[in-house]
Amino acid sequence: MAKGSQVRLDWSFVRRLIFGSPLSTEQIAHQRLPKILALPIFASDALSSTAYATQAILLNLLIAGPHVLHLTVPISLAIVVLLWIVVFSYTQTVHAYPQGGGTYIVSRENLGTGWGLLAAGAILTDYVLTVAVSITAGAQQITSFFTQLAPYQTEIALGAIWLLTLANLRGAKESGMLFAVPTYFFIVTMLCTVAVGVLGPLFGYYPRPYQPPQQTAEHAMHALSIGIILRAFASGCAAMTGIEAVADGVQAFRPPESRNAAHTLVVMGAILSTIFLGISYIAQKYHIVYYGHGAHGEDASAESVISMVARVVYHDDPILRGIVLFATAIILVLAANTAYADFPRLSSILARHGYMPRQLANLGDRLVFSNGIILLAVFVSILVVAFKGNVDRLIPLYAVGVFTAFTLSQAGMVRHWLLRKEAGWQWKATVNGFGAVSTGIVLLVIIVEKGPQGAWVVVVVIPVLIWIFTQVHRHYQKVRAQLTLIGYEPQPPPPHTVLVLVPDVHRGVLPAIEYAREISKDYRAVHIEINPADTQRLKERWEQWGGDMPLVIIESPYRSLIGPLVEYVKQVRQDHPRHLITVVLPEFVVTRWWERALHNNSAFLIKLALSNIRDVVITNVRYYLD
Amino acid sequence: MAKGSQVRLDWSFVRRLIFGSPLSTEQIAHQRLPKILALPIFASDALSSTAYATQAILLNLLIAGPHVLHLTVPISLAIVVLLWIVVFSYTQTVHAYPQGGGTYIVSRENLGTGWGLLAAGAILTDYVLTVAVSITAGAQQITSFFTQLAPYQTEIALGAIWLLTLANLRGAKESGMLFAVPTYFFIVTMLCTVAVGVLGPLFGYYPRPYQPPQQTAEHAMHALSIGIILRAFASGCAAMTGIEAVADGVQAFRPPESRNAAHTLVVMGAILSTIFLGISYIAQKYHIVYYGHGAHGEDASAESVISMVARVVYHDDPILRGIVLFATAIILVLAANTAYADFPRLSSILARHGYMPRQLANLGDRLVFSNGIILLAVFVSILVVAFKGNVDRLIPLYAVGVFTAFTLSQAGMVRHWLLRKEAGWQWKATVNGFGAVSTGIVLLVIIVEKGPQGAWVVVVVIPVLIWIFTQVHRHYQKVRAQLTLIGYEPQPPPPHTVLVLVPDVHRGVLPAIEYAREISKDYRAVHIEINPADTQRLKERWEQWGGDMPLVIIESPYRSLIGPLVEYVKQVRQDHPRHLITVVLPEFVVTRWWERALHNNSAFLIKLALSNIRDVVITNVRYYLD
Repeated sequence: MAKGSQVRLDWSFVRRLIFGSPLSTEQIAHQRLPKILALPIFASDALSSTAYATQAILLNLLIAGPHVLHLTVPISLAIVVLLWIVVFSYTQTVHAYPQGGGTYIVSRENLGTGWGLLAAGAILTDYVLTVAVSITAGAQQITSFFTQLAPYQTEIALGAIWLLTLANLRGAKESGMLFAVPTYFFIVTMLCTVAVGVLGPLFGYYPRPYQPPQQTAEHAMHALSIGIILRAFASGCAAMTGIEAVADGVQAFRPPESRNAAHTLVVMGAILSTIFLGISYIAQKYHIVYYGHGAHGEDASAESVISMVARVVYHDDPILRGIVLFATAIILVLAANTAYADFPRLSSILARHGYMPRQLANLGDRLVFSNGIILLAVFVSILVVAFKGNVDRLIPLYAVGVFTAFTLSQAGMVRHWLLRKEAGWQWKATVNGFGAVSTGIVLLVIIVEKGPQGAWVVVVVIPVLIWIFTQVHRHYQKVRAQLTLIGYEPQPPPPHTVLVLVPDVHRGVLPAIEYAREISKDYRAVHIEINPADTQRLKERWEQWGGDMPLVIIESPYRSLIGPLVEYVKQVRQDHPRHLITVVLPEFVVTRWWERALHNNSAFLIKLALSNIRDVVITNVRYYLD
Repeated sequence: MAKGSQVRLDWSFVRRLIFGSPLSTEQIAHQRLPKILALPIFASDALSSTAYATQAILLNLLIAGPHVLHLTVPISLAIVVLLWIVVFSYTQTVHAYPQGGGTYIVSRENLGTGWGLLAAGAILTDYVLTVAVSITAGAQQITSFFTQLAPYQTEIALGAIWLLTLANLRGAKESGMLFAVPTYFFIVTMLCTVAVGVLGPLFGYYPRPYQPPQQTAEHAMHALSIGIILRAFASGCAAMTGIEAVADGVQAFRPPESRNAAHTLVVMGAILSTIFLGISYIAQKYHIVYYGHGAHGEDASAESVISMVARVVYHDDPILRGIVLFATAIILVLAANTAYADFPRLSSILARHGYMPRQLANLGDRLVFSNGIILLAVFVSILVVAFKGNVDRLIPLYAVGVFTAFTLSQAGMVRHWLLRKEAGWQWKATVNGFGAVSTGIVLLVIIVEKGPQGAWVVVVVIPVLIWIFTQVHRHYQKVRAQLTLIGYEPQPPPPHTVLVLVPDVHRGVLPAIEYAREISKDYRAVHIEINPADTQRLKERWEQWGGDMPLVIIESPYRSLIGPLVEYVKQVRQDHPRHLITVVLPEFVVTRWWERALHNNSAFLIKLALSNIRDVVITNVRYYLD
């Protein structure tokens, strides 16, 4: 029989245009990445943090005044030491867990479910913040160059978020191709800048010390305290975010997965340390001062430290500064992409374990976890709007999740070695143990020092997430227990009573009446008497057309259709508690949309009302008007 | 079996609180109104037009300058003459049509369906404008007193509209009770004001000629022309709007309906003429000038003519002026109520004749045509917002519909007498004929003179309405032709094939499988293979639990559930073109709202997709999770 003749917009065409053609499940293996393409995806987060790490140190030291900015390099060095401890620690993880999984898997397997969920909550918030911080920092690079765009930081950030979402919904492989060029462009640009700034004097090229464009307002200076130094250190630890991404994504590498992932991790650590130390050195040596956006974002036009570094190194040349800022902005957008690869992946693992809604485990038709991608985009958009696109206010929230994850992951690895006792387990346990203790101490410093600046939000959100995980898990377990067929005894089929709603007797109703006769031997027609004047005529027609089916006429003093019908079905339910009851509703299908308005479309409301009565099956028998 | 244990807000309680308890169909007879209660409802429209009729004449004459304002009384007299011609004409209608129906019925019966629809379109637009003009004029009375509220005219008008809507949804009888007191209060107040103003000098009390509060801007004067006089006359004809309301509502009077309605009509005409002429006389004699809101509503604070008349008569006494304005504002709101009584009534007649959607013919549970009331409120709200609550801009639109209706109604009556030739038919035909010709000429004047000022909108809308009426009618006729049982040959029942969707084998799916077995002998289970890894396990479980039901496994390379299912059902449809096909969908019902998010709620999407395939019955078998 021919299908409906309506002209419809071909949605599948629009979908294909935006997201690309669907990919079949068989194509999944081809999505593995070679190292050269994996580096841009997994390293962009870590590398891009050079854009805001030095800046965060400068901003926090400034509380004690510009004269303490000589502490920038020492603090940066301390962070780099910590960085390498963590990098080595993670290379061990990558080898021990070739199937991937990262922090959540490691914590769960070795420390137990509770710690695993803590790790999962921490790392999911971290992914959301990665996107928020990277994108707002990216917007700051843009407004440092195009200063007239400064009032639109939030809008720029939101636009970038949704473009990135779209790109990721299209699929991972294309992301790798698309993002490789700019990442390598950033690496080259920044290594050049650092090389010129640091080594230039050896060859007679001297960077020009920074001159602020105008006299800035006087600061109320605090005395230098250990607290200020710790806060600067804690903020600078933002440089380390993103290192764990590789461990989560081992499965995305080409075989041998572990070796390739570990190599990528070490290369990434080397590039990151070089750029970060280089920028801190130039900033300190040439007296760069960063005042930030102000506590309430009063100064939207705060120039980024990267921009000031480029001014110093390239003697204010606008083209070279533009290139540096452009490269940085792009890498920051790509950094957000790390989270777009990992947030949906981790969500899908949690969903498969029953801790998050199971829709997050479904691969979309482009072989990506579409639901997780969209969920991430929504959270990040809320965060960016709430913080008005101000990167300085987002950074204090950032490190809590990461360092919780670092600590748990490495503590889990210690447990791993202690249980397995493979060759060299003592050495491996020591490396991971040292990492766990170091990052654990830093985590405490971060919570104490950054808590009042906003990190408390994360400290609250993580337990809430854990609570949600356990509630979801409990629900799925309850469902599984109910659905199990173990101990199920097949019952003899119950008697089946069918009720057909008969508003009138005409051709549109006959199919429903025939259907009722077809599916059971116990049937009756039900008419709700809204207009008593019509009842006699109805009865006469029923004589002629109703056959042996009894007609029940129900009074409706208040002219309501649904109330009396529901009452009657409840009555039948009570009279026959064991029967299966089917309510057959005849429904008109019209061909043009406006014609719907010309009929009482009560089928939907009836279904809604009847859905309160248990064990009643509702069936629509449609009649097509041509 | 117990019904769902959810805690729900008791909507029926909230409904009752707002709209009152439902009324049973038997109570309908008690809703008939005695004359003393019918007058306020049916006369408020006509009487209230005194609030803007004189004002409209003054505004139009002012185009030629204040020196021509002595034409106010002569023009008003001409209007009153026309008024009585129409009143007498309508008393004949009321007697000839005791069952009510007014213009639409009279035109349709005597002139044919086409003219009847023209009348219906005209009078429906008129009702909408009655509400819009009355409410905005009412708002003007309020802002004439509380001048600081002038910028909120639109908001005041919208608030009044929705309060009135609510009152009418509660029911006609309570409206009568609620509105009687203020209507009589208005009549007394205005008759006193006119008496003091007109007769005062005979007893030595002299009104104080009007002094404008400040010098107003110079007007660009046009020479006095016949066009200006005709335009003033046409605008003043707004005074006559509302006379036809009684004829439409004869059925709402107590028996003897016709006599009571005719009496009410004449009493109304007398009160209306007195107040209208009195106001025009005072305005002219004491040099009242009305500048209006300006062409684009620049001057929101335009003081109403009623307010200026009260100033003149009561020597600027604020309390007496306040009483007059209060009484006028209230009667204007009640005037809108006429339309609230008649718009839904006429819509229900049109709906019963198949020219409007049939939902408009349903009496709601308070025995009012709720859908018509809501429709009216929506149209009026749009109009008031579009015209920014400016009564001066709405008045030019007003009279087109009314005079079209007057002319058709009386022309219809002429035809009526010519056909029946009852006693005295010559005289009766002459009265109605004179009325028809007079109002017909005035209609032409209105279209020509007011068309450019906005009346063209109505001239466009009425034909559009007629087109809609005929399209709706055509649809219902087509449906009736299709649904007729004449010539219907009962067919032998077709073979019945049942497909059950089986996403997995567990307790939640077994009821659906059992249901399929119950309703037919030809059944099969359908599984869409989204994750091929699970298929083997599914097959094994099917061996154990599926019994004799064949299991069809359908590949889904793109992991879509709906696409392959639809394809398969289409295939079955093609293979068995004559079979009845039922698709049984198992559905989970969870107890808490957030649990819905934890399951793939695909049942709705599947239903939507399958609804494109004809003659497929879709049945949900629900499984309740406790």
